[in-house]
Amino acid sequence: MTTSWARVETICPTRCRVCFRPWTACTMRAVATCIPQSVNPRAQPMKNFTPNLRKRISRRACLRAASLFPTAGLAASRASATVTREGNVHTVDDVDTPAVVIDLDVLEKNINGMQQVCRDAGIDLMVHIKTHKVPQIAHMQLRAGAVGICCQKLGEAEVMVAAGIDGDVLIPYNIVGRPKLVRLARLAKRARMTVAVDSEITAKGISEQLRKDDASVRVFVELDTGGKRTGVQSPQAAVELAQKVSKLANLELRGVMTYPSRLETKPFIEETVALFRKAGLPMEEISGGGTGAEARSKEIGCTVHRSGSYVFEGLKRISASRNPPNPDTCATRMIATVVSTPTPDRIIIDGGQKTFQRGPRRGYGHIVEHPDAVIYGMSVEHGHVDVSAVSHKFRVGERLSVIPDHQGITINHHDEAYAVRKGLIEDVWKVAGRGRVQ
Amino acid sequence: MTTSWARVETICPTRCRVCFRPWTACTMRAVATCIPQSVNPRAQPMKNFTPNLRKRISRRACLRAASLFPTAGLAASRASATVTREGNVHTVDDVDTPAVVIDLDVLEKNINGMQQVCRDAGIDLMVHIKTHKVPQIAHMQLRAGAVGICCQKLGEAEVMVAAGIDGDVLIPYNIVGRPKLVRLARLAKRARMTVAVDSEITAKGISEQLRKDDASVRVFVELDTGGKRTGVQSPQAAVELAQKVSKLANLELRGVMTYPSRLETKPFIEETVALFRKAGLPMEEISGGGTGAEARSKEIGCTVHRSGSYVFEGLKRISASRNPPNPDTCATRMIATVVSTPTPDRIIIDGGQKTFQRGPRRGYGHIVEHPDAVIYGMSVEHGHVDVSAVSHKFRVGERLSVIPDHQGITINHHDEAYAVRKGLIEDVWKVAGRGRVQ
Repeated sequence: MTTSWARVETICPTRCRVCFRPWTACTMRAVATCIPQSVNPRAQPMKNFTPNLRKRISRRACLRAASLFPTAGLAASRASATVTREGNVHTVDDVDTPAVVIDLDVLEKNINGMQQVCRDAGIDLMVHIKTHKVPQIAHMQLRAGAVGICCQKLGEAEVMVAAGIDGDVLIPYNIVGRPKLVRLARLAKRARMTVAVDSEITAKGISEQLRKDDASVRVFVELDTGGKRTGVQSPQAAVELAQKVSKLANLELRGVMTYPSRLETKPFIEETVALFRKAGLPMEEISGGGTGAEARSKEIGCTVHRSGSYVFEGLKRISASRNPPNPDTCATRMIATVVSTPTPDRIIIDGGQKTFQRGPRRGYGHIVEHPDAVIYGMSVEHGHVDVSAVSHKFRVGERLSVIPDHQGITINHHDEAYAVRKGLIEDVWKVAGRGRVQ
Repeated sequence: MTTSWARVETICPTRCRVCFRPWTACTMRAVATCIPQSVNPRAQPMKNFTPNLRKRISRRACLRAASLFPTAGLAASRASATVTREGNVHTVDDVDTPAVVIDLDVLEKNINGMQQVCRDAGIDLMVHIKTHKVPQIAHMQLRAGAVGICCQKLGEAEVMVAAGIDGDVLIPYNIVGRPKLVRLARLAKRARMTVAVDSEITAKGISEQLRKDDASVRVFVELDTGGKRTGVQSPQAAVELAQKVSKLANLELRGVMTYPSRLETKPFIEETVALFRKAGLPMEEISGGGTGAEARSKEIGCTVHRSGSYVFEGLKRISASRNPPNPDTCATRMIATVVSTPTPDRIIIDGGQKTFQRGPRRGYGHIVEHPDAVIYGMSVEHGHVDVSAVSHKFRVGERLSVIPDHQGITINHHDEAYAVRKGLIEDVWKVAGRGRVQ
């Protein structure tokens, strides 16, 4: 993660005064701090770009950049780009550790790649934001072509709507209890909301509150097709619940939702569709889920697919989860510092269970600079690394970039993440949905 | 967790108008919302206490209570006690889920119990706040007799000092890198700071920055006595490092620190002490660590002991970690709602890997109301519960109180925790140290 300024100079000379990126290459205009010359006449072509110029890019320049894009409530976060409590921070090397860094090149490649996969499969993509919880990333996903976002928690949906997300918002979760119902009704007046239900109690609760508050939501009946979590257990149960939902006030029955999208699910879905038709119930949408199962969703009859984890881990990583994480497909890094080199075969880094997260696969993470070093254990705040297979002599203060095993859970430990391209910080993103567990 | 108002009536009639607790029984005056009659003449004895009275205890009353204790920057948090974004919330049953609830009776018992254990062992207690990260709990621990607090992260120490903690503050962690050194120097001017080092690089870095900023800290040399994390490897290495530390400006050598406190460590410590004496180096303090090892610390020669996890899990639970969590010793509960009852043997609750935390022991948690129900798995936001061994018929919307397996890591997922006594909310605590990973 050492930043080479020589690398920066390879960028096209017509670039923004704030983040050094060429406007023409920018794929995230609405959230990045890039300013085209047409918008900011002061953004001169920087042909004679030198490292010294960097020092003249002040906080004031960031604030000026932010004022040019006063939309969607993002100005404030943009104004804080490249500025932390310790003053100006421009490169990954300036960031204090441990810190979550997101590689924008990889992120954009993953976002565009998934959109292409869904385009090829002929299925709509609804992106699951529980993986990142960052409104700026949701905006990038929608701009790339996603039809809407999916939030596992009502609090996440509130954060996203407040940040200007204007596509469909799906909460594929039974919303239960008065406080949440009141909030759902409030949100349904500001965004096109869809929820999933698997019981009459849930559906009735939502309907009653929405009727009181004069709001409405669209509803999926959730099928349990092997996930063994929520969902009705049979096509008959689905149609029975759908009939009840269709009679409830302020609910618009849309179709069904399932997870995971497995081939064995096809008969279940086909039978459900047939029963819905027979009963004269609407079946506008069939929603499948799970990164890597997009084509399978299409095959079993779904019209839309929910994917989330691809955004950080890439399709390749997801479909080959036994392989070590690959820097070309994994977008997040945990930048850590070596705080101790107690023995020749052990180093300790400044992140543990409250910084990283042991994932559902194996181990804790992959050290990019030294793939043979093994993070073999974690205390609450210490990462224990076996370096016996590495010839490099580690020293206290050295920085390492680690791809965490479960990137979605790791970012959830942090309040902010640094959006970085070629070692330069383009923005500091608030993990705005973190902690919105209700 | 059903609240019975009858229970409240058993409390002594001279009680506070805000939280209904008798002033005489209150052991946490500086942080609670309790107001004695002597302070607030309006706090009349409530002999004819009825449930209706509860409705008259308004937000204004809370604010008035807060204004009576304007110290230590805690007024704001106290003012929010019993108030959430959904309006007034008085009992555990009013709290939306999932939510962290801390049982004050158990918490106080654990705090006082540990203080007694250390008193009996004849060793000072330095409480490790990484377990809770809540300034109010740190204040309770210091009031009970702890000599100071221990923070694993500099950011945690900043939060605690800002919240008025005025005892010694120990960071038993190698502080490395300019941003952290600048912050340490700043903090050292406001509080009596101690740090641990295990390398000359770390010690030199601290000394140079402190010299520039005209601040000073006290220093422990850290010994690796079996924890196999940080720490020097031998008594000789300890004395060599100590000699270097003692020559560095703005550092005051205090002694040594170790973890864990094991009996096998005794010769290592004794030899280190002898070598320090021979070299004429100060050995004012010897710090041991680990809940449950207080007496052992004393036995191997320590003068002070760092304990953290006892505060939530109690000594009994810690020393018998294979037993199921015990409501009498475990202070935290995760209040969760049943959101689905898909099959007779499975229910789903509204918390998963981002709400609970699989601990270092086994499983995810213990359901207090139904000890035979087993949380056998967790998706990111779903808790999967096997209820085949329970005769009770669960329904959607039902609330359960779960003791998480690792309470310290669980609270770290949340921004706030409800402080509760006998079902009544006394305060809403911000988990102020959460996310301060740097």
